[in-house]
Amino acid sequence: MKKIINSPDKVVSEMLEGMEKAHKSLRYVRELEVITRREKSDKVGLVSGGGSGHEPSHAGYVGKGMLDSAVAGNVFASPSPDRILKGIEEANSGKGVLLVIKNYSGDIMNFEMAKDLAVMDGIEVDSVVVRDDVAVPDSTYSTGRRGIAGTVFIHKIAGARAEAGGTLPEVKAAAEKAISRIRSMGMAMTPCTLPGVGKPGFSLADDEIEIGMGIHGEPGVNRSHILSAEALAEVLLEKILDDYDYSGKEVALMVNGLGGTPLMELYILNNEVERILSAKGIKVYRTFVGNFMTSLEMSGCSLTLMDLDDELKELLDAPCDTPALKG
Amino acid sequence: MKKIINSPDKVVSEMLEGMEKAHKSLRYVRELEVITRREKSDKVGLVSGGGSGHEPSHAGYVGKGMLDSAVAGNVFASPSPDRILKGIEEANSGKGVLLVIKNYSGDIMNFEMAKDLAVMDGIEVDSVVVRDDVAVPDSTYSTGRRGIAGTVFIHKIAGARAEAGGTLPEVKAAAEKAISRIRSMGMAMTPCTLPGVGKPGFSLADDEIEIGMGIHGEPGVNRSHILSAEALAEVLLEKILDDYDYSGKEVALMVNGLGGTPLMELYILNNEVERILSAKGIKVYRTFVGNFMTSLEMSGCSLTLMDLDDELKELLDAPCDTPALKG
Repeated sequence: MKKIINSPDKVVSEMLEGMEKAHKSLRYVRELEVITRREKSDKVGLVSGGGSGHEPSHAGYVGKGMLDSAVAGNVFASPSPDRILKGIEEANSGKGVLLVIKNYSGDIMNFEMAKDLAVMDGIEVDSVVVRDDVAVPDSTYSTGRRGIAGTVFIHKIAGARAEAGGTLPEVKAAAEKAISRIRSMGMAMTPCTLPGVGKPGFSLADDEIEIGMGIHGEPGVNRSHILSAEALAEVLLEKILDDYDYSGKEVALMVNGLGGTPLMELYILNNEVERILSAKGIKVYRTFVGNFMTSLEMSGCSLTLMDLDDELKELLDAPCDTPALKG
Repeated sequence: MKKIINSPDKVVSEMLEGMEKAHKSLRYVRELEVITRREKSDKVGLVSGGGSGHEPSHAGYVGKGMLDSAVAGNVFASPSPDRILKGIEEANSGKGVLLVIKNYSGDIMNFEMAKDLAVMDGIEVDSVVVRDDVAVPDSTYSTGRRGIAGTVFIHKIAGARAEAGGTLPEVKAAAEKAISRIRSMGMAMTPCTLPGVGKPGFSLADDEIEIGMGIHGEPGVNRSHILSAEALAEVLLEKILDDYDYSGKEVALMVNGLGGTPLMELYILNNEVERILSAKGIKVYRTFVGNFMTSLEMSGCSLTLMDLDDELKELLDAPCDTPALKG
C-alpha cells in the first residue's frame, strides 16, 4: 500500500490536524474529529459529515457561506453520535442547526441519534437527507438512493440561505428545494485502498469500468468495456435525464473527479457533457469541474445536475469562502 | 489504458474546449491551443505555458490577478513558438508582456523564439525562468534545475504586481525576487501513462518511491523504500533547507499533489511539514494544499517554500480570480 501516512489508525486525526494548520479559519476539535469555523456567527448553523476518504468533503466546505461544522468518521464509516453532537454544539448560536445527511443507513442512524441528543439539550435541530444518486434504487449501505457529490450543492445553497439570515425552516426549505432538483450519476475505473485494509476493495479488469458504482465501491448498474468520453457522457446523462426532466431548464453542472482522475479528463468529459446538454436545450448556467467528493485515490467521475430557478441561482452565486470552494 | 478521452491526439484541444465551456471568463484560441482572458485589461500581460498534463497548470491560472494567457503544448511537450506568439499577442495591451518559463530546454528554446518573433512585431517582451526544483543540478530535459510547482507562486506574485499597474520591469523584478526565494522538492510513488503512449512511462516496485523525480518522470535523487509521512516530510524538507536558509523567515508553503494522491494524504503530510518548520523557527504565513501542478494521474507530491517579505506577502494576498485559485 503506497500512501503518505504514518499509521492507518491515525489518518483521520492527522489529516484534520493538517487541515487546521493549513487553514487559519478552521478549528479542529480533537478526539471528536470535528472541523468548525474559528469565528462563530449569529445565524442558523449548518452541519454535515460522514465517513472520511471523500475529501474535500466535508471539512473542506466549512467556512463563510457554507458549513459551520463538518464531522468526520473513520474512513468510509459514519461518525458516532457523540462526534455529531459536538459538531451541532459548535454550530449552534441559538438560532437552530440544520443537518445535511447523505443517505447511508449508518449516517442516518447516527445523525438522527445526535439530533435527539441535541434536542434534549435544548438545541433546535432539523435535518435533510440527500439522495441524488440515480444509479440504483437501493444499495449496499442505503435504503433508497445514495447521497453523493450533489451534497456539495446542498452545502452551498443551504449555507447561502443561512448566511443571509434565513430562519431554520427557511434554510431547510432551500435545502429541500435543491435536493428535489438534483440528480447525480457516476462510474469508477479503478478501486481504492482503505488505509486500515491495505488492499483494494474490489477489482476491475484492465479494460473494464463500473457504471453507477458508489463512492465506497458499492455495486453499480453494470460493468462495461471502457467507453470514450463521448459515450460515457451519454451513458451517465441518459440515466440522469430519464429520471428528471431538465429540458428547457437552466442548470448547475458538476463534473466531479473521484480522486485519481486527472483534471484533463474531467475537462474532456465536460466538453462532451455540455455539448449534449446544449443539443437537448438544457442551458448550463454554471459549471464546477474538479474533485469535490472523492473516494480516496479511486479513478472515475460523477455528473450532477441541479435545476435552477432565480432563488437557487442567487444562492449558488452568493459569496463563499472555504478551503475547497471560494467565490 | 483507462482514461476518459476520445482520441489520444485530441486530448489537449478537447480539454481546452471543455475549460472554455466550464469557465465563462476564459476564451480558447483554437488550433493554437491558447487559453486567454475573455476580458482584456490595460496592464502588463503575463504569459506562461508548457507541456500539457500538469493541469490545472497553466490554463487554470488564467484570470484576474494571475495570467493573461496560457499556452498548451502536447502532453509533456513544449508548445511551438507560433502558439506562444499567439499567447503573447493575446496578452499584449501595449504595456509589454512577461513570459514565465519553466526551466526545460524545449520550453526555453520555444519561448525565447516566440519572444524574438513578438519583439520583431513591435511588442515589448521580457521573460523569467523558474528553476525551483532542488532535487538535481541538471536533468533529462533541463540544463540546471527544473521548474516545477513553485511556478504557480510566480504566476501569483507577478500577476498581482501586473494587476496593480506595475511596469514590465517592475513585474519582472517581483517575479525574479520570488524566484530567488523559492525552493521545491518532490517525490513520486506511481508512474503515469501518456495518452499517446498507452503504457506507464516507468515502473516502481510496490514498496518503492523515487525521491526527487521530475514532473515528467525524469530520474530523481534516489529510490527509497516507502516512507512514513513524517520521514517523507523530513527527507523533502532537508534538501530544501540545505539549499536555502529559511530559518527565522516567514514562508508561503505549498503541499502539491501530483494528480493521483488523495487530499487526505496531502493534509497528513502538511501536518508533518508544518510541525518540522515550526520546530526550526520557520513561520508558515500561508499554506496551499492541493493539486496545483500535476503529472496526469501520477501519485506523489512536492513541497515548495517561498521566503516572504512585506512586498511578497502583499502580492500573495492580493485578490485573484482564476479557475484554480481564488481569494
